[in-house]
Amino acid sequence: MKAPWITYRPELKVLDCTIRDGGLINDHQWDEKFVKAVYQTCVDAGIDYMEVGYKASKKLFARNKFGDWKFCDEDDLRRVVGDNDSEVKLAIMADAEKCDYREDIPPKDQSVIDVVRVATYVHQIPTAVAMINDAYDKGYEVTCNLMAVSTVQEPELDQALEVIAASPASTVVVVDSFGSLYAEQIEILVKKYKSYLNGTGKEVGIHAHNNQQLAFANTIEAIIHGANRIDATMGGLGRGAGNCPMELLIGFLRNPKFRLRPILKLLEEYIEGLRKTVEWGALIPYVITGQLNQHPRSAMKWRASENKNKFVDFYDSCVSEE
Amino acid sequence: MKAPWITYRPELKVLDCTIRDGGLINDHQWDEKFVKAVYQTCVDAGIDYMEVGYKASKKLFARNKFGDWKFCDEDDLRRVVGDNDSEVKLAIMADAEKCDYREDIPPKDQSVIDVVRVATYVHQIPTAVAMINDAYDKGYEVTCNLMAVSTVQEPELDQALEVIAASPASTVVVVDSFGSLYAEQIEILVKKYKSYLNGTGKEVGIHAHNNQQLAFANTIEAIIHGANRIDATMGGLGRGAGNCPMELLIGFLRNPKFRLRPILKLLEEYIEGLRKTVEWGALIPYVITGQLNQHPRSAMKWRASENKNKFVDFYDSCVSEE
Repeated sequence: MKAPWITYRPELKVLDCTIRDGGLINDHQWDEKFVKAVYQTCVDAGIDYMEVGYKASKKLFARNKFGDWKFCDEDDLRRVVGDNDSEVKLAIMADAEKCDYREDIPPKDQSVIDVVRVATYVHQIPTAVAMINDAYDKGYEVTCNLMAVSTVQEPELDQALEVIAASPASTVVVVDSFGSLYAEQIEILVKKYKSYLNGTGKEVGIHAHNNQQLAFANTIEAIIHGANRIDATMGGLGRGAGNCPMELLIGFLRNPKFRLRPILKLLEEYIEGLRKTVEWGALIPYVITGQLNQHPRSAMKWRASENKNKFVDFYDSCVSEE
Repeated sequence: MKAPWITYRPELKVLDCTIRDGGLINDHQWDEKFVKAVYQTCVDAGIDYMEVGYKASKKLFARNKFGDWKFCDEDDLRRVVGDNDSEVKLAIMADAEKCDYREDIPPKDQSVIDVVRVATYVHQIPTAVAMINDAYDKGYEVTCNLMAVSTVQEPELDQALEVIAASPASTVVVVDSFGSLYAEQIEILVKKYKSYLNGTGKEVGIHAHNNQQLAFANTIEAIIHGANRIDATMGGLGRGAGNCPMELLIGFLRNPKFRLRPILKLLEEYIEGLRKTVEWGALIPYVITGQLNQHPRSAMKWRASENKNKFVDFYDSCVSEE
């Protein structure tokens, strides 16, 4: 056997979702300076895409209760990226049933955004497909992020993939929302997604969470089995246990266009300091929900309480019958 | 494909090396109460082996400069474990060239220790084999931990494995000392070790470090490919980036004899508190040495300095030509 890990696939592209996924920790209240720094880091490090935030419905979410990056109004975006005179493509996430996409997503030629990532649970697939079509027709590159796949029954997943494969989404992302999947499961899922997309030219993506300290390992596993669209965040910043850390991913990828040093600079200048005000990482309550394939919301609540280090009580509450 | 990860191999055994590997952080100055708590946790959690410390040479290391667990005198051991009236087997580590094994390791019938783990670099193999023979002749179960395998050239590794396979060591451990190996490399190594041990009844072990947050993932990978002797530590405690966290490993293993709850209790009552006085985990300097396949000693020094969060300077120092 040779050593495939010291070569690279030119078609593999990396997406930074630091600001978007990290925004789930603090209601998207990121300092503009930080958002600019992440953007500049993406430019300097050769990252392919940066996801800036959500396009959330202002009917569902009060504009003044959340930071700008929950809504990604065009003016706010341009304050940070100007006309985005860079190689980095910009993405926003649009959640099924939480986005007034017809009104709030402008035609591509009126926006600095390049990619719309439609996030959906399996029961929302028809809504998601309508959103995918809308964004595609407006001129965007579109992806479909099928969330919480670890809780989806196989016949439903097969049906969903068939429908998404027929849509104009150019990437379908394997999303381990609860950080519960092991590498063998990632392999099965990536192969399944690929089989449904076979011949369409569409790519498989991976979005891993770090509850069991497997986000990076599962991302590598997905890459080995052919995923070419890879999500990561600076320092692993993200809700709960956080995401696949960009500094690990870029250390692994061998494409010389990627550069580690700008990422280390961001970690030093911004991410370390954030730990004083926001918390993320594979802390024990997140480990437990990951092991149990549960949504991390109970763990987030626990970590916000005075009992945050009462691991046994939290475990008991997660496995209780009540 | 079915789901092999929800079954288990009865022959798979787990070794806790919290006190031994963790002792490399603080010169083995562990409070006796903590050592007792780890021991009791191993008993309660169904762990197969507990490694208590080193048998270090008192000629090389001053007895009063290190904690008891660097020497593991019989009296000190028995203060903690009594006659070890439990299912847990006790292990000590003996480093090649750092252990006066002939004098300091008593015959098995005079010791509460069950297992001697001989740790060796590849250039010390003849010394290690002499130590393995000595411990075996004294009545112990013996393992061989070939350290820093990520820096060993393949012909040397082949030669070493041939020699160890002919020795009375019953387990040979794949040791990723620098936390630099990816899962594909673990697969290659485990398969190689197995091929050399084929037909001897000897087992392959895995000892992973967490520099790239891959300790748990690499441990799973080793298990998939047949490793049946698994090292882990409570909370991942260990030098530098630390080890494969026991709470993740036990969450993954499906043998009902293992229990997670006592481990969570130890984490809550002891391990969290330790973070105030000792540091371990996949911090950026350890990530960098792992990526570069370097010993973590430069990163440990850096973390002990006032520049500990100057990641870019540390990176530059690691890749400089000087």
